[in-house]
Amino acid sequence: MKDAIKVGLIGLGTVGGGVARILIENEDSLGRRAGIPVKLAKINTLVLKNPLPYPLADGVLTSDIKDLVENPEIDIVVECIGGVGAALDFARRALGNGKHFVTSNKELIAKYGPELTEIAKSNGVNLYFEASVCGGIPIIHGLKNNLASDNIRKLFGILNGTTNYILDKMTREGAEFADALAEAQKLGYAEQNPTNDVDAFDAAYKLSILAGLAFHSSFKFDQIHFEGIRSISASDIAYAKSLGYAIKLIATGVDCGEKGVQLRVHPTMVPLEHPLANISGAFNAVFVEGDYIGQAMFYGPGAGMLPTASAVVGDIVDIAMTHELTHSHPSMLTNFGPREVLPMGLVESEYYLRLSVADKPGVLAKIASVCGEFGVSLKSVDQPEAEGGLAELILVTHPVLEKSMQEALAKMRGLDVVMKVESLIRVGLA
Amino acid sequence: MKDAIKVGLIGLGTVGGGVARILIENEDSLGRRAGIPVKLAKINTLVLKNPLPYPLADGVLTSDIKDLVENPEIDIVVECIGGVGAALDFARRALGNGKHFVTSNKELIAKYGPELTEIAKSNGVNLYFEASVCGGIPIIHGLKNNLASDNIRKLFGILNGTTNYILDKMTREGAEFADALAEAQKLGYAEQNPTNDVDAFDAAYKLSILAGLAFHSSFKFDQIHFEGIRSISASDIAYAKSLGYAIKLIATGVDCGEKGVQLRVHPTMVPLEHPLANISGAFNAVFVEGDYIGQAMFYGPGAGMLPTASAVVGDIVDIAMTHELTHSHPSMLTNFGPREVLPMGLVESEYYLRLSVADKPGVLAKIASVCGEFGVSLKSVDQPEAEGGLAELILVTHPVLEKSMQEALAKMRGLDVVMKVESLIRVGLA
Repeated sequence: MKDAIKVGLIGLGTVGGGVARILIENEDSLGRRAGIPVKLAKINTLVLKNPLPYPLADGVLTSDIKDLVENPEIDIVVECIGGVGAALDFARRALGNGKHFVTSNKELIAKYGPELTEIAKSNGVNLYFEASVCGGIPIIHGLKNNLASDNIRKLFGILNGTTNYILDKMTREGAEFADALAEAQKLGYAEQNPTNDVDAFDAAYKLSILAGLAFHSSFKFDQIHFEGIRSISASDIAYAKSLGYAIKLIATGVDCGEKGVQLRVHPTMVPLEHPLANISGAFNAVFVEGDYIGQAMFYGPGAGMLPTASAVVGDIVDIAMTHELTHSHPSMLTNFGPREVLPMGLVESEYYLRLSVADKPGVLAKIASVCGEFGVSLKSVDQPEAEGGLAELILVTHPVLEKSMQEALAKMRGLDVVMKVESLIRVGLA
Repeated sequence: MKDAIKVGLIGLGTVGGGVARILIENEDSLGRRAGIPVKLAKINTLVLKNPLPYPLADGVLTSDIKDLVENPEIDIVVECIGGVGAALDFARRALGNGKHFVTSNKELIAKYGPELTEIAKSNGVNLYFEASVCGGIPIIHGLKNNLASDNIRKLFGILNGTTNYILDKMTREGAEFADALAEAQKLGYAEQNPTNDVDAFDAAYKLSILAGLAFHSSFKFDQIHFEGIRSISASDIAYAKSLGYAIKLIATGVDCGEKGVQLRVHPTMVPLEHPLANISGAFNAVFVEGDYIGQAMFYGPGAGMLPTASAVVGDIVDIAMTHELTHSHPSMLTNFGPREVLPMGLVESEYYLRLSVADKPGVLAKIASVCGEFGVSLKSVDQPEAEGGLAELILVTHPVLEKSMQEALAKMRGLDVVMKVESLIRVGLA
């Protein structure tokens, strides 16, 4: 039994830097979650411009890739450099030397996934690529493991955050494509040459990976029909809305049995009541339909340094969990000690309150005075029309402790002008 | 290396029957996905009322539980009987004899999860319970694996389908609680004694399991503050809507650091623009916020025979994938042969078409005639007000082959009355 799982990281750019940060900041808790310490043992980087925001032990940084892919100490090689030049070479060597390989590189997987899988198999290790598609959404794991028991018939995805941001902005503000794109570029959501996103290359790559897992085959990028969103105008979006649809860039995969599989990415009018119609901003979502599960959807950030790095580290933890322990995944239920549960009285919330009150002057003053006494500050007060001498009062409070609210409520119940506290409902997610 | 993973199933009720059906109907494809055949070797059931809808080999059915929990041939014991009497006894014996244990029993996990985990650990096997919370949503796996790299700060769940159905019905139809409950009972969404659902016991059980995984501890049912939905009235829902909220039964878990963890289930006003506000009918959803992932949501059916059975079988496939093969999870990318991709021309869809046309009589007749020629049937035609001799025509078609639509479009482009085909957008998810 090993005393630690040792990780070699290639690349310290956006994603690689995030991976290093998560591994170092959380070394203790990751080790406990995995059941075995996880050490960032080597980092291979070509250029190291800035001082790093975390300490590295001596000997961790190396300019020689052999210190990772040929180092018998290293269990897992993590690749965060992108492209299919050096990355492909390193993947072949790491797997060939019996190291697990984790990557966020969708081009590498879309083009060389099957070849690398075969190298992994014959060396008793595995290839992990959760971060390659929709960084913050565990859809690769979902398709490989949880949904492996099902027969997926349909898959619809919003797989590109840039185009969803643009279409969302056009929808909310009536903006035209060119203006929304310029805004996305200003905010860093779109690149100066936006073709990879807006012409749907990116989404088509991702669809080829997801479709391979969902439909148990391997599909090439050039088998996918794709159209981008340049042709969508504000008036199309307005007409679509009046017809009951939102326009989204949807990646579609449909299993048509003997006839084959539909694989296409294009702007699509999605019924407004469908969950995909409500995915806003730069978020991604994947909606699947299977024989057994029926319908399910995964939703989250599609990209970004930390969501993507978090997916990479998730793969590392997964490997560590199964590495030396064979099947006994340690359970998080017992690896940490007990924790306190906060008493309900100390929970803070806004409150909605509906009171039946006497329909006469001075009622609100009495109630407001009780609120003031217990530090309950009112955000809004509504008094719908009264009927038969009885009125309703609808109060919404600012955030206040449950204890104070309950004390105020008890005193309100005793007021002669309050007939009944009809409802108390907590407002907002904490 | 074994030649197959052998499963022993306890119980042939709703979930157990579904598990048997999925294992038998998909034996071939499950084996290929897992990389090793998965055999339903033994079924222990007390009563077998009906002829089964699938064939069983001789010797599979047994009335002796020892044929499962003490049988050296059995690798995985699956429990689908519920409760904490016999199920607990069988779990202890199966794990104690070195068999993986898979269950859909939330009461068993909420009450005895930590104890069973320890037995599993000391016997080199594992405990799987994906199906115990939100059957169709892979949230257990998500929290144990993918999100293990993150620090979850907040978790909000719609964990009970019955109460969501009732609140949704009250919201859509303005119905009162009693009427919506009666309807849910009639449709089989609620039991005759609905207290387990409507008084939030069920959601509180599930929250205790999810919170244990999210916050790395183990929480007892009686540490959770819970309130049901009996007190919600149609007028509260109407007021909430006018204030910009939907009322949902939300299970809340918030990590407050040193102070402890907030764990509570109660009706909550959720801002209408939040994804949880739009979860309709009997669906479940779990929304998480973590340091790295930001926000993510899992959405799917919360219960039902096949979604729950599918989650059980997902756990079985997961075990099979790692069992003899140690770390080399076979990849679905290479375990199946190539598949055809359907040519785009043979894809059928509805189409939205925006045309700039001459503003004179007879235009629609010419366009409709072209449509008719290529079998394109029109579902709606709109002609917004014209400006400067040019008009727009908005057409939506019935489903038609892409090929026919493109041919019709080519001919339309040649019509003297058509200035430009402004947009062609496919309508609806396939």
